[in-house]
This record gives sequence, structure tokens and C-alpha cells, in this order.
Amino acid sequence: MTETTQINIGLIGFGNIGTGVVNALNNNGDLMAERVGVKLNLTRIADLDTERKRNADYDPAILSADTKGLLNDPSIDVVIELMGGIEPARTFVETALKNGKHVVTANKAMLANHGAELFALAEEKKVKLLFEASVGGGIPNIRAMMLGLCPNRIKGVYGILNGTCNYILTQMTQTGMDFGDALEEAKRLGYAEPDPTYDIEGLDTAHKIAILASLSFGQDIRFKDVFVEGITRLSATDIKYATELGYTIKLLGLAKLTEDGQALVRVHPTLLPKESQLAKVSGVFNAVLTDGDLVDKTMMYGRGAGASPTAAAICSDLMEIAAFKLSGNSTPRRPNLRVPVGSKKLMPIGELTTKYYLRFRADDKLGVLSKISASLGKNGVSICSMMQHGPHKTWAEIILVTHPTCEAAIEAAVAEINAMPEVNENDGIVLRVEEGL
Amino acid sequence: MTETTQINIGLIGFGNIGTGVVNALNNNGDLMAERVGVKLNLTRIADLDTERKRNADYDPAILSADTKGLLNDPSIDVVIELMGGIEPARTFVETALKNGKHVVTANKAMLANHGAELFALAEEKKVKLLFEASVGGGIPNIRAMMLGLCPNRIKGVYGILNGTCNYILTQMTQTGMDFGDALEEAKRLGYAEPDPTYDIEGLDTAHKIAILASLSFGQDIRFKDVFVEGITRLSATDIKYATELGYTIKLLGLAKLTEDGQALVRVHPTLLPKESQLAKVSGVFNAVLTDGDLVDKTMMYGRGAGASPTAAAICSDLMEIAAFKLSGNSTPRRPNLRVPVGSKKLMPIGELTTKYYLRFRADDKLGVLSKISASLGKNGVSICSMMQHGPHKTWAEIILVTHPTCEAAIEAAVAEINAMPEVNENDGIVLRVEEGL
Repeated sequence: MTETTQINIGLIGFGNIGTGVVNALNNNGDLMAERVGVKLNLTRIADLDTERKRNADYDPAILSADTKGLLNDPSIDVVIELMGGIEPARTFVETALKNGKHVVTANKAMLANHGAELFALAEEKKVKLLFEASVGGGIPNIRAMMLGLCPNRIKGVYGILNGTCNYILTQMTQTGMDFGDALEEAKRLGYAEPDPTYDIEGLDTAHKIAILASLSFGQDIRFKDVFVEGITRLSATDIKYATELGYTIKLLGLAKLTEDGQALVRVHPTLLPKESQLAKVSGVFNAVLTDGDLVDKTMMYGRGAGASPTAAAICSDLMEIAAFKLSGNSTPRRPNLRVPVGSKKLMPIGELTTKYYLRFRADDKLGVLSKISASLGKNGVSICSMMQHGPHKTWAEIILVTHPTCEAAIEAAVAEINAMPEVNENDGIVLRVEEGL
Repeated sequence: MTETTQINIGLIGFGNIGTGVVNALNNNGDLMAERVGVKLNLTRIADLDTERKRNADYDPAILSADTKGLLNDPSIDVVIELMGGIEPARTFVETALKNGKHVVTANKAMLANHGAELFALAEEKKVKLLFEASVGGGIPNIRAMMLGLCPNRIKGVYGILNGTCNYILTQMTQTGMDFGDALEEAKRLGYAEPDPTYDIEGLDTAHKIAILASLSFGQDIRFKDVFVEGITRLSATDIKYATELGYTIKLLGLAKLTEDGQALVRVHPTLLPKESQLAKVSGVFNAVLTDGDLVDKTMMYGRGAGASPTAAAICSDLMEIAAFKLSGNSTPRRPNLRVPVGSKKLMPIGELTTKYYLRFRADDKLGVLSKISASLGKNGVSICSMMQHGPHKTWAEIILVTHPTCEAAIEAAVAEINAMPEVNENDGIVLRVEEGL
């Protein structure tokens, strides 16, 4: 290979994923070079911690804390950004793009908050900003969507995008364990962070679904546009009742486009019919289901995290950039779904129409059930199925699944019911059902 | 858009899929043009039948029986070949490539028999030969594998690649119906051809797994290199016993690479643990599971047939070609897994080591079971689990699952057992088990 058939790579952030990238290049770099016809040279690493021993072979001379030096090094063709978090990552990526360098990133928070500006800058500078690792870890879902599903009008995209939550929910479903115990187990196994807020409150999923929605609909949808509910309020009881009703509860990211182009993007625990393909995704695995007008539904499944799978996604981006450099091409845009161009048309969650699962805890008194039914009826909520559990001592649990109803009607009815003296307003729950996935 | 930002397309074969392509371009052509920046013009269609009414809007003036004219028309940039079958499709594709035209094909039989020569010709002529629709219908699995999984050493690829067989097996599993009845139902619903041989004997799956194995391993693996067993010998009885043992039977294409680079490529009914992701793929749906050294297992799921999904795959190839033309690029090779380059190292099926499901029907006499066990032991076959059903009148059924064993040992033991006077050699079966998928 001649000098022109190589690219020089600078890596910012030498943590778990960064170590995975070094190992992937060490182990499979020759294979990648042979396949793409370009050698991938890792020539600089920047990390504030230059002392800690990493579980990878690397030349210590290429590691320093000098991020600025890396970003301004004219010999670097591509910067891999693996710091995570919005700042200073965003500033570093901006600098790299301004300096005419391609960027590969796994940073979903940065993209879900500042993606549009960064993509516009990349286009202006005629460089690539690639992000396969930002959603779905090792699953090549971004590439499959952008390059494979591009002839389709994407009507919706739905994902199990957080392995921590899916592990917890799978444990709760399979063993009947409560949320707190499942979370502790996840922490013990390293599937949950010591502070799990970002995962269990749905924020990670929200960042990812914002990215997928933007690509799918060509709209500039950001994290702040996503309605988010986490899994912390789920109890073993609701998991059990959902199972009895034929559903599995998953934390989903959901992005749906209405006929007239309005996007509703949301994250919440969702009751899925247990035979649906997404319901069958267990444990720490992730999956992305896309609904295209031509292909109907396709789903991709695999490991959504982990150093080695994530490194594979990053290396696939490096190979695309290597091929681009080799071709002498000057139009870096993909033949594909475009990155968003500034517009958006959002539907508020109050306008959602779907089936709902409602659970109320009420005094075991004559007439309570009819009062609840009357309130639902008055608010236009029609009941699809109902069961009562109990009485337990002096109270009973009333579980309802509604026919498709507008969220605003459910909110009104539930507020009214919770105000009834017989109902314990702190111990009920409203969950959304999604059929047809 | 200027003149240079369009490509002219000639379509050969105006059947069901061809009609789907015309409809996809009519309905989503503007969207595709906007996304890729190039207009896709369908300017000629060739089909021997110029009279039949197709369920699509098209200018009758562009349809003729003049395939040669289309192939030699200098204004055509891309030829879509949708005739199916090896000849004359192969000759037409060769001519198109020789004439410097890009080719998009859905023809798995042609690629599994003559792919390497055609890919070499395309490379020589600096044009693209794309085939997303040849495996997995609308699922963008070829692109995901070639562009997304390219940093991985692919250790294996496994697929449910034929919707007819998967529909039949799903029906047998869910309703207990026998093979013949399930096949009749599939015919009635249009899921099976009037002559279903190509599907139910595993030939369609064999063509597809040969293509996937070639791409995955970079070896020139052809249809004739694939060991093939169809689903016609499966009975409701075996489906039932497999279910009792915790397995689901699927017709799989399996391609596995040994540590030292030998490929074993095969198609046969396979017992999968019922919790495996492939086991959960029901009805006419397809799925491809890839095992890469970095990403571990990823799976893609969706519609493997149908005019509209298949047309979507074809259009994604057209968009790749359009982008290639737009970029003025002269290196049409993808940054990816290469198409095979001539070598192969095959492992014979006799060297397969896996678990086996064995069912024998034997006279209900004292000592038969111990004779069978002794024969297995003598041949080095160790038993993992066993059950006996019956006696039914004068005979009993003996069902065994072995520990991992070499296929040759199983063959020897089964031949010996079938030669026993107490055993009905025409009424037993040997099936392979695949765990860990």
C-alpha cells in the first residue's frame, strides 16, 4: 500500500469503548485494511488520564492529555470522539470539523441536542460526521436505515434502546421480582451504573429515539422534543397483570409520523402483545423496528452496548471514511436518508390515540366500580377489558384496558377518578399499550 | 435538476416484482430523488409478454419484447434483471456489464451459480452489480452485512430464508397439523407455488445461504457446495416431540467457518432451543443472524418476499448507483466485505459436530432399547436425553437427543440400528440440533 492509501486517526477519550477500539484495530486492523484497501492508523490518543493502565496494547508515546494538539494536528484525517456528555465534546467535534477532519462519534447526548448544527457544519466542510455507535451499539442499524431503507417513507421507528432497562424488565417479568431488587441485581452484574438515573428514567432512550426520529422523518427532532417517562414506577404487580392480559412491558422509544407529517416522539413503559417481535427481545439486548411504506416492518437485533460491539460500529464508520478518501470523492453525503434540515412538526402527547392500561386501588365498597366506569364513560373512554383483584383486606385492585382513546381524555378521567374519596390516588398507574408492532 | 443528475433505468422482466418496482418508483420516486439528489428514470421495460395488463401505471410505449435493444441502448445506465432462473438471465447480465451498465438483480440462482464471474466482470468494467433483493427480500441485510459488519471476522451466518417453509413449519408447530395439510394451506393462501419443490426441498434457501457464505467468508462458495435437506420428511410427530424437548424446528441455512478457515454450508431442518431469537421468527417472515467476532450475534428480521418489500430493496440498489454516478467516483467497489475472489476451503458434512435428534420406531420387545443404546455407544455416540413413547399396538417410538457428536459417527450408528430386525428403517428420522444461536 502506498502513502495515499492510509488514514490517520486521533482518538479522544480512552475509557472502556476507546480501549475496545484500540483492541479492534489491533486484532482486525489487517482484515479491515484488506477489505477497504486503506490502512487505518491510530496515531494519537488524548485523555486526561494518561496514567491508568488500559487493557490493550498501545504505544504509550501516542497517549497524551493534549486534546487541542490532536485537534490541530494536520496529519490527522479522522477524529473519534468518545468522551460522552455534551461539553466539552461538542466544542471538540466542532473544532475537528472546522479543521476539515472527519468525525466518528458515539455521543448520543451531543447529537440529540446539537446534531443539526454539527451535520450542517460537516456538510459545509465536505467531511463526514458518522455515528453508527450512538444508537444500538454493535447493531448496524443507522447504516441499514440510511442506506438500506432509503427508498421508503418511514412511518415509524420503535426501539428497545437501553440494555439496563430491558434487563431489569426481563428479570421482573421472568421472576416476579420487584423493580428495586432487579435494579440491584443489574448493578451487581455491571448492567447498571452506580447512579442509574440516566438509564432508568428513560433519558438515554430519549436521546437515541430523537436521533432515529430525525433520520427517519427528515425533521430536526431533539431531546427536548421527546416525551419521557422512565420505568421507576413499575411494580411487580403491574408486570404480573400485564402478563395475565397477554402483554409484555418494555421500555420503548417510539417515533411515529402521522399522515399529515406530524411527529410524535416518546419514551415510556409500553405494553406490547407478547407475540410481537419486540416483546421477544430479552435481557440486555437491543432492537430497532422500522416501519417503512414499502418494506413494512423490519427489525434489527443485537448487543446495544459493550466495548467490542460498540468498537465494531465505530470501525465501520472508519471504513466508510477510508473508502471515501480512497475514492477521491468530493461529495461526502450518503445516498440516503438525509440528516435533518431544520424543520419539524410535532404532535403533543395529549393528542396520542392508543389503548391504555389503567390500575386503580380503591376501597372495597359497593358502587366504587360503577363510579369508576361512569367517570370513564363520561370522559369518552370505552373499556375493552376489565379485571378486579381482591379484595385484599379492605381494598381491591381494578385493572382496565381501554379501547383506543385520546390521551387527553384518559388524563381527564384519571384525574376525576383519583379525586374520588374511595380511590388511593398515590397507588394507581396509567400505562400505554402499543399493538400492531 | 440538470441532465447529469439523473439515471436511466431499463427493466428486464415485468412480472410481480417488476410491477412492484414500477409502483415503488411511481409512488416514492420523488422522495428517492430528493434524498439521493438524482432522478431515477425508468425508460425501458423488456418482457416477452407485452399484452398482459399489469397492476401499475406505466407508459405502454416503453414496454417491448426487445431485450437486446434494451441491453444495447447507450442511454440506459442501469439494468434491473428480474427474470429469475439462470439462463438467459446470466447472458443478459453479462451483456449489460460488458456494455458498461450497472446491474441490479434479485436472481439468487444466477448469483449462487455464476456470481464470482459476474462480480469479476463488473469490477473489470468499473460498474456495480448489486443484489440486495436476492436474499431476505425487503430486509436490508446485504447492505448491513457488507457495509455495517465489515470490521468483523464473520464466524457464521444463519438464516430463515424461505417464507414458504417457515409458514408451513409454523403452522405444523402451532396447530399440530401434518406437513401435507400445511403445504395445502400455504398453496391456498398463495404462500406456496403450485409446484413447491424449489422451496420445500431447500433449494431456494441453499442459493441464498451460498450467497451469504461467500460474502461473509470471502470464499467462492456456490450452490453445489451446499449440503441440502428439505422439510418434506418432517412429520407432526417430530414437531411435537421437539416441542416437548424444548426445541422449535426451523428450516435454516447455516454457514459456519472453523478456526482454520474451513466453511461448512448447509440447509436442513434444525432444532433450535425455543428461546433462541431465530426460533421466535414465525409465519412467512425471514431473518438473518450473523455472528461476528466483535459484535457477537446480530439479527435482521422482516418480509422475505412480496412485490413491495422486494422493490424497496431493488430501489435501495438503484439509489446507491445513483449516488455513485453523482459523485463522479471511479471506484465502484464498496468499502466492505469483498465479493469472493476464487478460493474456498470446504468442510464435508461428515465432519460436522453437533447434537442430534434421533427417532426410531421399533417393535415393542424386551431388549430393543438396550440394543439401540449399545449400538450408539459402540459408535461413540453419547446420549443427552431419551424418551420412549408408546407402546402403540406392537411398536414403540424411541426419541434421543445426543451430546455433540460427529455426523459420520451418527451415520454409522443409525445405519446399524436401522438394520436391526426390530427397527422399522423407513420410519425413523435424524435431525440436527443447533444450540447457541
